[in-house]
Amino acid sequence: MAKAPKANAVVGQSGGPTGVINASLVGVIEEANKHPEIENLYGAIHAVAGMVKNEFIDLKKLSAETLEVVAASPSSAIGTSRDKPNEEYCANILEVFKKRNIRYFFYIGGNDSANTAYILNTMADEANYDIRAFHIPKTVDNDLLVTDHCPGFGTAAKFEACALIGDDLDNRALPGVKIGVIMGRHAGFLTAASVLGKKRDDDGPHLVYVPERPVSMEKFVSDVVGVFEDLKRCVVAVSEGICDVDGVTWAKKLAEQAEVDAHGNVQLSGTGALADFLAGQVKAKLGPKKRVRADTFGYLQRSYPGIQSAVDVDEARRCGREAVKLAMEQDNGSVAIRRTGNGKDYAAELFRTELSNVAEKTKSMPDEFINAEGNGITDAFIEYALPLVGELPETEYLGNCPKV
Amino acid sequence: MAKAPKANAVVGQSGGPTGVINASLVGVIEEANKHPEIENLYGAIHAVAGMVKNEFIDLKKLSAETLEVVAASPSSAIGTSRDKPNEEYCANILEVFKKRNIRYFFYIGGNDSANTAYILNTMADEANYDIRAFHIPKTVDNDLLVTDHCPGFGTAAKFEACALIGDDLDNRALPGVKIGVIMGRHAGFLTAASVLGKKRDDDGPHLVYVPERPVSMEKFVSDVVGVFEDLKRCVVAVSEGICDVDGVTWAKKLAEQAEVDAHGNVQLSGTGALADFLAGQVKAKLGPKKRVRADTFGYLQRSYPGIQSAVDVDEARRCGREAVKLAMEQDNGSVAIRRTGNGKDYAAELFRTELSNVAEKTKSMPDEFINAEGNGITDAFIEYALPLVGELPETEYLGNCPKV
Repeated sequence: MAKAPKANAVVGQSGGPTGVINASLVGVIEEANKHPEIENLYGAIHAVAGMVKNEFIDLKKLSAETLEVVAASPSSAIGTSRDKPNEEYCANILEVFKKRNIRYFFYIGGNDSANTAYILNTMADEANYDIRAFHIPKTVDNDLLVTDHCPGFGTAAKFEACALIGDDLDNRALPGVKIGVIMGRHAGFLTAASVLGKKRDDDGPHLVYVPERPVSMEKFVSDVVGVFEDLKRCVVAVSEGICDVDGVTWAKKLAEQAEVDAHGNVQLSGTGALADFLAGQVKAKLGPKKRVRADTFGYLQRSYPGIQSAVDVDEARRCGREAVKLAMEQDNGSVAIRRTGNGKDYAAELFRTELSNVAEKTKSMPDEFINAEGNGITDAFIEYALPLVGELPETEYLGNCPKV
Repeated sequence: MAKAPKANAVVGQSGGPTGVINASLVGVIEEANKHPEIENLYGAIHAVAGMVKNEFIDLKKLSAETLEVVAASPSSAIGTSRDKPNEEYCANILEVFKKRNIRYFFYIGGNDSANTAYILNTMADEANYDIRAFHIPKTVDNDLLVTDHCPGFGTAAKFEACALIGDDLDNRALPGVKIGVIMGRHAGFLTAASVLGKKRDDDGPHLVYVPERPVSMEKFVSDVVGVFEDLKRCVVAVSEGICDVDGVTWAKKLAEQAEVDAHGNVQLSGTGALADFLAGQVKAKLGPKKRVRADTFGYLQRSYPGIQSAVDVDEARRCGREAVKLAMEQDNGSVAIRRTGNGKDYAAELFRTELSNVAEKTKSMPDEFINAEGNGITDAFIEYALPLVGELPETEYLGNCPKV
């Protein structure tokens, strides 16, 4: 491998924001500051969109104090983009890179971002332009291959666990059916995280539905009614990607139905529609006198400030640093996490994997994380996910104390 | 005033849960433990519903450790109820009280709960049954009269402020229109709290709509489009009680329209409908290529654990204690908060007011808290509310740094 060139570097944040993507950004910045090979470190405003439009800021001039605040802030501090660059788009980016002598490319994002790094690296090779392209993993969905888990997941999982701790206490206080709709269109990890705060035997969520296990509306309603008859209340966590037995998501079926039913006045593609639909199905069965409520947690799941998981923010930052270290010695790659201890001895180390191992591929929940009936989460998942989330608020409910 | 009787006491938690209603419960318990006049302290399971059904737990046997966890837990630890007792209901409660020799009644809740205390007290007087009835204020809506503010408001306000800090950072990273629908059907205090985390000039929310200021859909959409054209993005906080210029809430109009439009399959009375409708109105104007999203924050606003405002939880607990202290000397009353210092010198003291001053009455936002155009919140509100919320997470966005 050739010596690391003395040149400029660029870093971008891609795809949906998370609670710790800024920690990865700060990891890149603080490691880049240590290497004189990296002359300028440019932050691409709105990811590839900024690269192609030549819109950059200088990340080497930020104070250590500012960096700490950035690392603790949710969302993407230099902006992000949903653009999926094709070859022409990447060719235009490479032109900008050549003009600015950018020879280090750090891209924080999901599998699309790994793919962008892969395309850029391949095209640069073909053009005999030496560039070192690295992908730094980030998703709330936890759906990347190779890595044990993704930075961003632990903090979002903590949000879900806390949300369901609150939902369950609320539902105990005012019994009825409460449904929470959770992010993750294809992978159920975040929805599964709703169980991480359960402590008492009768704690909710009592039912959990992930995209990996199709469910008919009859089965869903009958499950809910069953728990309700048993406990006089029921808390349900549902992935936004929940699908019917034919594999089509309920959200899609709803949108299609709305197109037929509505007269132009009613918009059903909004985020609350699935939750309202599910509540309506349960209400139709239980009757109007029973409390049935549904919330869609929305963007709070990825952007609520002040609740970072300590493990997650630490790993996100280390992943950013690792990408820069690797770039001093390698041509390209994606940073991945290997778990080296679990439970109270949780520990993890970082390693490099090929961009092509991560690009465009997605991971789903393994079978062993989902119960046989397809409406609950196993202890194997809890063992996997709990160390990533860290401490959860301790709570108490007194309504089960013996009557006097 | 007669000497405080040696007898039993009951405490109940009424209406919607909050983040600190359990701190008030613990305040009642710890103060009751100091007074030998109170022999047993019964917790009424599900408020008046438990009283009328004779379902109580013993609150004197809880350890100090348990009490601290209870005080830190959101929701109502002994269950709550939406029942509004009439005279017959109260007569049945009095029968239970007589059998158990309950002569102290502590009720934590809103204006309906003050009214329940008032009715019970009046009926006991008429029956020559000596009872001391006290109301302890609680609402997330902050809509009680007399008191400067309500326990429960500060913590919920902190949730809204944090939610909008996150929403604003998310919207900076992925520009578009973001609408957040916030609790509070008649009073706009909670929706107004969405501005409390604003620091930079261009921070959102850029528009805030409270129930106190009716707005036409034309005006709403034109406001949003105006900000969007100016900033290329727009964050909006809307009360669930937002109403049209005729004073009818948009939620009600939507529900009526849905009844006409839908064919039995579509349920529009769920919590997400108003948010989706508002997003649809804006999208119709901006076109399908612009990102327009809306979230309804739902029960997270009142039950999310681990984010209590320090001032709020302290005051809630003090209000619980104060009710018991007052009951040693007085026949009845409602506890209220008087602000005795503001800003960095914020301080408050408690006092007694008549139950009838609080019962069944509600407070709205004063005019001086709302801007002249009816789409924003003034500094006077921030001065009022910020001390109640305490410290908010510090965050940073770098996208506005000078381009290089």
